[in-house]
Amino acid sequence: MISTYTVKYLLLVAALISLPKSIHAQPVTSITSPDKSITLTIRNTQTGAVNYQLAYKGKSVIEPSGLGFSLSKPKATLNRFTIVAADTSTTDETWQPVWGETNRIRNHYKELLLTLQDKTDSGIQLRVRFRVFNDGMGFRYEFPPQQALTHFVVADELTQFTLSADHKTFWMPGDYDSNEYLYNTTKLSEVDAVTAADREKDTALKSVIGPKAVQTPLLFKTADGLYISLYEAALLNYPVMHLQLDKKTRTLTAQLVPDAVGNKAYLQTPTQTPWRTILVSDKAADLLTSKLIMNLNESSKIGDSSWIKPQKFVGMWWEMHIGKATWEKAGGKHGANTQNVKKYIDFAAKYGFDGVLVEGWNVGWEDWFGNWKEDVFDFVTPYPDYNLDSLVRYARGKGVRIIMHHETSGSVTNYERRMDAAYQYMVKHDINTLKTGYVGRIIPRGEHHDGQWMINHYQRVAEKTAQYKIMLDSHESAHPTGLHRTYPNWMASEAARGSEFNNAPTLGITPEHTTILPFTRLLGGPMDFTPGLFRFRLNQFDSTRTQQVRTTLAKQLALYVTLYSPLQMVADLPENYEKHVDAFQFIRDVPVDWDDTKILAAEPGDYILMARKEKGKNSWFVGGITDENSRDLSVNLNFLDPGSSYEAVIYRDAADADWDKNPEAYTIERKKVTAKTNLSIHLAKGGGCAIQLIKK
Amino acid sequence: MISTYTVKYLLLVAALISLPKSIHAQPVTSITSPDKSITLTIRNTQTGAVNYQLAYKGKSVIEPSGLGFSLSKPKATLNRFTIVAADTSTTDETWQPVWGETNRIRNHYKELLLTLQDKTDSGIQLRVRFRVFNDGMGFRYEFPPQQALTHFVVADELTQFTLSADHKTFWMPGDYDSNEYLYNTTKLSEVDAVTAADREKDTALKSVIGPKAVQTPLLFKTADGLYISLYEAALLNYPVMHLQLDKKTRTLTAQLVPDAVGNKAYLQTPTQTPWRTILVSDKAADLLTSKLIMNLNESSKIGDSSWIKPQKFVGMWWEMHIGKATWEKAGGKHGANTQNVKKYIDFAAKYGFDGVLVEGWNVGWEDWFGNWKEDVFDFVTPYPDYNLDSLVRYARGKGVRIIMHHETSGSVTNYERRMDAAYQYMVKHDINTLKTGYVGRIIPRGEHHDGQWMINHYQRVAEKTAQYKIMLDSHESAHPTGLHRTYPNWMASEAARGSEFNNAPTLGITPEHTTILPFTRLLGGPMDFTPGLFRFRLNQFDSTRTQQVRTTLAKQLALYVTLYSPLQMVADLPENYEKHVDAFQFIRDVPVDWDDTKILAAEPGDYILMARKEKGKNSWFVGGITDENSRDLSVNLNFLDPGSSYEAVIYRDAADADWDKNPEAYTIERKKVTAKTNLSIHLAKGGGCAIQLIKK
Repeated sequence: MISTYTVKYLLLVAALISLPKSIHAQPVTSITSPDKSITLTIRNTQTGAVNYQLAYKGKSVIEPSGLGFSLSKPKATLNRFTIVAADTSTTDETWQPVWGETNRIRNHYKELLLTLQDKTDSGIQLRVRFRVFNDGMGFRYEFPPQQALTHFVVADELTQFTLSADHKTFWMPGDYDSNEYLYNTTKLSEVDAVTAADREKDTALKSVIGPKAVQTPLLFKTADGLYISLYEAALLNYPVMHLQLDKKTRTLTAQLVPDAVGNKAYLQTPTQTPWRTILVSDKAADLLTSKLIMNLNESSKIGDSSWIKPQKFVGMWWEMHIGKATWEKAGGKHGANTQNVKKYIDFAAKYGFDGVLVEGWNVGWEDWFGNWKEDVFDFVTPYPDYNLDSLVRYARGKGVRIIMHHETSGSVTNYERRMDAAYQYMVKHDINTLKTGYVGRIIPRGEHHDGQWMINHYQRVAEKTAQYKIMLDSHESAHPTGLHRTYPNWMASEAARGSEFNNAPTLGITPEHTTILPFTRLLGGPMDFTPGLFRFRLNQFDSTRTQQVRTTLAKQLALYVTLYSPLQMVADLPENYEKHVDAFQFIRDVPVDWDDTKILAAEPGDYILMARKEKGKNSWFVGGITDENSRDLSVNLNFLDPGSSYEAVIYRDAADADWDKNPEAYTIERKKVTAKTNLSIHLAKGGGCAIQLIKK
Repeated sequence: MISTYTVKYLLLVAALISLPKSIHAQPVTSITSPDKSITLTIRNTQTGAVNYQLAYKGKSVIEPSGLGFSLSKPKATLNRFTIVAADTSTTDETWQPVWGETNRIRNHYKELLLTLQDKTDSGIQLRVRFRVFNDGMGFRYEFPPQQALTHFVVADELTQFTLSADHKTFWMPGDYDSNEYLYNTTKLSEVDAVTAADREKDTALKSVIGPKAVQTPLLFKTADGLYISLYEAALLNYPVMHLQLDKKTRTLTAQLVPDAVGNKAYLQTPTQTPWRTILVSDKAADLLTSKLIMNLNESSKIGDSSWIKPQKFVGMWWEMHIGKATWEKAGGKHGANTQNVKKYIDFAAKYGFDGVLVEGWNVGWEDWFGNWKEDVFDFVTPYPDYNLDSLVRYARGKGVRIIMHHETSGSVTNYERRMDAAYQYMVKHDINTLKTGYVGRIIPRGEHHDGQWMINHYQRVAEKTAQYKIMLDSHESAHPTGLHRTYPNWMASEAARGSEFNNAPTLGITPEHTTILPFTRLLGGPMDFTPGLFRFRLNQFDSTRTQQVRTTLAKQLALYVTLYSPLQMVADLPENYEKHVDAFQFIRDVPVDWDDTKILAAEPGDYILMARKEKGKNSWFVGGITDENSRDLSVNLNFLDPGSSYEAVIYRDAADADWDKNPEAYTIERKKVTAKTNLSIHLAKGGGCAIQLIKK
């Protein structure tokens, strides 16, 4: 029997469910981007909710979406507000990065700063700062100093992103510990993260959140031609934001990474969250040149940055992956022995590379993985067959420097105890570049790679290496969010599926993967993808291996242009390069620091064609890549100085090249070109092209 | 309806339940203590269980009790064994501690080493090493290197202690984070840990395990006159062992402290557990002189220990507790200001004390507690009103040294990052004694004060301070287990309810508390109890305070004899001491290092009377204390050199003294005594006496 009470209750529930629709929210305020293409609208509904809405040239980008927080200490739900103030301002400034894809960056936005008062009796005030650029928007929460809030614990962030339609979506499974997935391309409604993650057999550690949780950066292409990216900027003292999808409402809600006891963040006023970013354009190319995320980061904290030098390096690394050598000494195939490292130093010196990365140099690799062991490496004890002192002298004599490797095995408490001694050891040995690694489950046990505690750790490493004038390249760290502006010594990170997965037995690296990365992962900063493989059947030292790199050789060259990193590895073995010295010339010549970047053509998941001008020089370099489809690209050289003549050195797939059947077939041609030239280039399946343009 | 299956099942269950009784286990082997008073019997039952049983002079100490482990990785239950070998041996050696209650310690035991093979197909072997001394037994598990076991994770230790009757029990609630409880004295069957813990309102942090969980050391007095203590020794790389009580079977089972994800210990072969110890005697006094726990620890790891010097110190501490000053600078009552510390240095110099402890010297106290904040103190930044450089010079000129204070606020990750810099800062400032503190919830979040991770931390601090030649006194650390043998620079710890609780508003320190501590907490090592209060109404600076110290002044003197520590605080304010300079003389004279210790009379919870001979001198010091009852003690001086004459300086309660009504009433008398003298001393309620015996 349904009682009167029950009926009343049901009516009330029905009323509540329909509430958001039935209330005619009053627009409170709106601002537009400097060029008026983007409009942000803020509404304060009758219930007190504050929603934001974003439109681009009249098209919906984000439907009205919620803002707010749930705190576990003090216990409070902050999602009903009175708007106390709404202040607007405009900023237009230009700054110079220490290194990068361009030598000047314009930071031009309109800002709306909302001051919100919690409608309950908590007395808590917070602010939401919106910045609307011509290519998107960022917003963050700020908690000013106040009586009602000093220390607080975030249970959940209630930020939402509601989409207008069932867009085509480029997504990875949400995961607290790994971002080394392939991208899935489906309709938003078809996201199935657990199934996708289950397909991935080669990831060392997975902490999949659930079937409807996805990672950022998350990329959409709408039916009406918009490219939209959801991400974050300036991720400091806060966990990574993943997103939980409600398929019915097409709403993505922030899913912060929990700590060992389930809390999300421990904060103290005054404080703020990272920026939540929404890039939007009707041209895919605009995402690739967007500086919005860097602009939302603080300017450099490093006063004298003269010691920070973009570089290319070779190294002791891929030979472990393909079974020629091992990291560990036991077993008789130890790669990092003095003689072998000398060979790499000789090779670097001969071909003009700056550094030699040496992995497996230090004691501990016999027992480093899989046991959640805390005391693994001490970072200062070389294996007895690795004579670091003599190698440092030898390298110095040849103008080459050794690059340090600190694999933490996820035991971060151990690393933090030893960081100072480890960096002093580097300085003593004339080593000023460091590759870190975080393979395995994190210690403190219960913490995750993407949690607040680890985010703070990565920052500590960036700051401490800066104190020691050490350049940093972090692997298995959280996704980058433009912090290389603030810490320009933190030059690169992996934080995505990199070239090492070419060796993975199952999914590997698909041909399309490198056409998606620049639209997603690379929005946050340079990636140490480790391109430059020249041999694609990986049975060189182990005839049982059937893995194959799904790329042509010309595409590997192109990646040096299309996947930016100021620390760029030349990843293959010396003997494999010396079989193709003519093609190798491109890798020797391509720079790692640029004055300018032009996107000539781009479509995520399909192809990218871009041109970059060498820093302080008159040379341009063009890189073009395609997915599993062959493609003819038209390369319009109108970015060259008008009236000047250039020599073009064109490295491209041979006519019969094919990533699967004939990956090493390439041709190199030289021709005179001008700004009026239009080159027509054929890319093979999984292929690419690389062009050097030298002003005459 | 009960099916045939059900009936069979019920019969089976009944059979299983009665199994331990119905199987007539075969004794496998037994050994006795060197003096034959203690017999250990090992049985391997038909089910494969290996039980141990302990008897003292024919009386039951431990009934047949189980041994074993549950592992979570590899998944295995190790409690059914084949005994592969049973080896016996005898050791009798004597060693000299760096400092202590006696100058020589005999280590005399018979050993039985069982090698056990798991009866399942795991292939795992382990050993149990039993050592039977004249005053008890220790045993530990050892995991030798083996194919079947390398890295493993302990889910539970299955060690049991089954008692023969419902003994009188001195117990504290089992707690993962605090050992600062009063002892409860009840029958074993009356243990109610949650109710007891709920009565304790003044403990900063409690993580009570459950109603039937108690801490070790756990003390019993049996109806047939035995005193039994259950504890542990050499607690390294393993969590603290608490005990879960099954009242029906009177069985206590090991309850290890879990980590953030619920595991107990991460181990790698070869490894071993701490020793589980059982002290037993028919004389209570024997527990107080037992060296069993120290003997089960490894010998000193510190080669040159000449820099380790027992000492007495005054300090900036109690005045914060009673409201004269504050740790924090904000508020205008900052204690650790240069002028005030100078006063303490003057006081120490005037009365001949070695050190001045200064708490609240460093920036951070405004916001140090209760927020699980990670970056609190940096341990190298003094408040601006504390001129450390000038104070160090000033102190040195007066032959006094400042004692450093590192309050971690439980943020151990932060402390570990900064330890090296903090110790270098100490060395630079001529400071070689350190008091650490761990008040508050531990970071790494989810870890506990008593968990394996923290046990490893305490060891790291002991080892690192030793490298810097720093003497260590740790507060809020896990209970001590004789590690001061191995790390003699780790001279004292708190790890129990200390004198500071005299200021607590509710339960405080009961008069009996100090008569229990030597039978329990102090079995593991010296305690920084901070005795020496001379003013007992605590309204000196805050007239609203009603707390009162429940002791007489003479008892405070006696504690310097009965509560051993080589780092002994002289805890009250200079102005309070200077009102009783005659009584203060005892504290000036009493040493902190001894050649010998004699227990003249003792009963846990009632009274303790002991005599100690000063290290390298002919003077003896006697301390006697009582609980809430007045008592007449007979002090037989037959420990003095026969035929020699001594001057006795007797500090005792005045005839009308009473902890409650007249605590500061004492008399001092001097008389000639010899080894034939028998002094009769009256102790007031909550009173005590202290006697100095100077050879003439």
